[in-house]
Amino acid sequence: MYISKLFFPILRENPTEAKIKSHQLMLRVGMVKQSSAGIYSWLPLGLKIMKKIENIVREEQNKIGAQELLMPTIQSAEIWKESGRYNDYGEEMLRITDRQKREMLYGPTNEELITEIFRSSIKSYKSLPQSLYHIQWKFRDELRPRFGVMRGREFLMKDAYTFDLTDKDAVNSYNKMYLAYLKTFKRMELAAIPMAADTGPIGGNLSHEFVILAETGESKIFADKRIFEIKTEDFNLDVDSLIKMRNDFDKYYAVTDDKYNKKDFEKKVLSSNQLVTKGIEVGHIFYFGDKYSKPLKANVDLQGGKKVSVKMGSYGIGISRLVGALIEAKFNNNIMKWPIEVSPYDIAILPMINKNDFTNLEKTEKIYKELTKNNIDVLVDDTEENLSAKIKKFNLIGIPNQIIIGQRKETDLLEYKEIDKKSQNLSIDKIIQKIKKEKNSI
Amino acid sequence: MYISKLFFPILRENPTEAKIKSHQLMLRVGMVKQSSAGIYSWLPLGLKIMKKIENIVREEQNKIGAQELLMPTIQSAEIWKESGRYNDYGEEMLRITDRQKREMLYGPTNEELITEIFRSSIKSYKSLPQSLYHIQWKFRDELRPRFGVMRGREFLMKDAYTFDLTDKDAVNSYNKMYLAYLKTFKRMELAAIPMAADTGPIGGNLSHEFVILAETGESKIFADKRIFEIKTEDFNLDVDSLIKMRNDFDKYYAVTDDKYNKKDFEKKVLSSNQLVTKGIEVGHIFYFGDKYSKPLKANVDLQGGKKVSVKMGSYGIGISRLVGALIEAKFNNNIMKWPIEVSPYDIAILPMINKNDFTNLEKTEKIYKELTKNNIDVLVDDTEENLSAKIKKFNLIGIPNQIIIGQRKETDLLEYKEIDKKSQNLSIDKIIQKIKKEKNSI
Repeated sequence: MYISKLFFPILRENPTEAKIKSHQLMLRVGMVKQSSAGIYSWLPLGLKIMKKIENIVREEQNKIGAQELLMPTIQSAEIWKESGRYNDYGEEMLRITDRQKREMLYGPTNEELITEIFRSSIKSYKSLPQSLYHIQWKFRDELRPRFGVMRGREFLMKDAYTFDLTDKDAVNSYNKMYLAYLKTFKRMELAAIPMAADTGPIGGNLSHEFVILAETGESKIFADKRIFEIKTEDFNLDVDSLIKMRNDFDKYYAVTDDKYNKKDFEKKVLSSNQLVTKGIEVGHIFYFGDKYSKPLKANVDLQGGKKVSVKMGSYGIGISRLVGALIEAKFNNNIMKWPIEVSPYDIAILPMINKNDFTNLEKTEKIYKELTKNNIDVLVDDTEENLSAKIKKFNLIGIPNQIIIGQRKETDLLEYKEIDKKSQNLSIDKIIQKIKKEKNSI
Repeated sequence: MYISKLFFPILRENPTEAKIKSHQLMLRVGMVKQSSAGIYSWLPLGLKIMKKIENIVREEQNKIGAQELLMPTIQSAEIWKESGRYNDYGEEMLRITDRQKREMLYGPTNEELITEIFRSSIKSYKSLPQSLYHIQWKFRDELRPRFGVMRGREFLMKDAYTFDLTDKDAVNSYNKMYLAYLKTFKRMELAAIPMAADTGPIGGNLSHEFVILAETGESKIFADKRIFEIKTEDFNLDVDSLIKMRNDFDKYYAVTDDKYNKKDFEKKVLSSNQLVTKGIEVGHIFYFGDKYSKPLKANVDLQGGKKVSVKMGSYGIGISRLVGALIEAKFNNNIMKWPIEVSPYDIAILPMINKNDFTNLEKTEKIYKELTKNNIDVLVDDTEENLSAKIKKFNLIGIPNQIIIGQRKETDLLEYKEIDKKSQNLSIDKIIQKIKKEKNSI
């Protein structure tokens, strides 16, 4: 794609209203535009990145046998009254009255609605387990929306729900999601640590937050460094492997503020292993047994005809938030570098363009075609800006690979640059090989 | 995929609350479930079909150079006051007050918001034309939501917006969309006729509705039959070709109720060419010049520094509605047949399964693997129902190709059936070839 043909409004300066680097960068390079407090439009560049994140999340959910459906954004208040959360939820719930004076709301989460779908469809224990998810916009009417998409009001979330017959089966479903989350974040080149967490308004007694390290994070983190050495690829979906995974992680101390206890931390973690830093929550999983199935009467028949409430868990990933979180994690020293699976394009071509001299543009066109033929997604900066302005701009856009076409040289080799490294001279074939390898290695 | 592993709640009887066949079928085979009046959850089968429709729409928009972005569902009332539509829109607009007492609304359409995005990003005539679209949920608070997803309150729509310098350029953008719409519906095997239409609350003086024929349609249609003979593939994106396309269509009389005039119809259309039937609107395009750009001050600078209001059009396709519309068009004599590009699966395997005899299941497994290896998406009915029950069920599910595995036979040929045709005996290779050809021919 040629940048001159894109809707790609770039600002010259950092916007003063933005306080953290992800918010600044997203406004600066035209990824989003605020439409009202805590509500954003996603411009083409930002949307492309968010869709790639969404797709990774989808693929990893499908891999563990979760099935995608889609619940609406607007829900009736009735089922929230059945579960008892309608009054509990407080002012963060956006309450709406329709023209028939019915009480409605914009879903902040979907435990009630999915339970209602389940109970009207599944009647027998034979149809268990079930694992359902959707990727849909949610609304939470934050009192002080801030930090751009990191704490917006309208946000995109993947939320999954599992239904099992016994506690033991349900914990196995929980463990599957736990593994799927580790793999999901790994594909985004994020080290997300699962931390035992409070359950808050969702309820239940088992819960983990997945937290990535970032100095600008909102939560303070206390962990044993060795937790980072656990290799996700050592685990698979077998029951025993999942139990081992849980044990391996549980061995190491890793908590947020809420759960921090100084004495415990110092007793359990050698001082050389102590890590105290900040983090961003990107996922949160819960097991809450029959908290919703009981009041909402989501039962299945056992063989003898006895009815039991199903055991449920819920599992969220903040997809729009992840766009910001990735920037917080990967934008350093004024250089952004998107992980290849999430990057809006695989490679950028930055030609120096002199007036009335089309040599470099023609060369660019040739390289563009060659790359595209190999299924490599290319962004060309065909504007008339000078080369150093282009390089600065692309340090912000964050495409991890670049080909720079400067002064004419008597060689077939191209100036290739990984965005935060030194240039090297490579043939087009070598560059293609390198990118293909990167894309497949994940 | 094996049907026993899917969340696929099928009803034994037609639901009595549904009045038209698409609504009946969608509830019956578990494509959707009503969550409240005019608001639906999309279950896995329905979502899969809707996503395929969405993707065809997206691809055809991208082909004409339109760029995807994503505006939020919740908008501020302010810009609607700027355009003057806040009061005009009436009770169909779902109005919301947030916790800070700000007036918000759930977007029924996006002319205002896209104009606001445009005006804050594009300043010069050099950046024109621009063509932007998004695929997002909308809400219209219908007084009497009915006919399932055909007239729901929360619905998925693709809406595109074009921005041009002159009327002439703008009409060319309009014509491009017109062609994109013809191609979009053709890929869904729908004969959608563009009909000159009223502009209603969107405004402007040039508008076409794209209408498909269906006896259960809400609009009465009067047309010259010959309009169906125009071949979409004869036109391309060149300015002259687009003008010819418009002329070719405009030559034939084709109107809905609103614009019907008996005398005109009889004068302009030979009685042997007169077609009087019913139809469903699946798309609607508008050209309205500066209706929004003027009040919202969406101007660009000309070369001399003079400012002019840009000329705009808007273009909608009802994506969730199309799922219902396709059923209205393709469900006949109790047999549904999805067009291959939209079908949830390419082929179904229906094995007769006898208790304690795994021969047919093993045979099925082998065929399944062979088809999957060839990128053919297969649904296997591995339930214990008898074969005739399976066939009846699959007549409703509507996957266009079937392999039926009945009594053991001494041949390698398989019983292959196109859903509304007679069985034939074909080798697995022939079946693969046939499906691949179907999928690529579109």
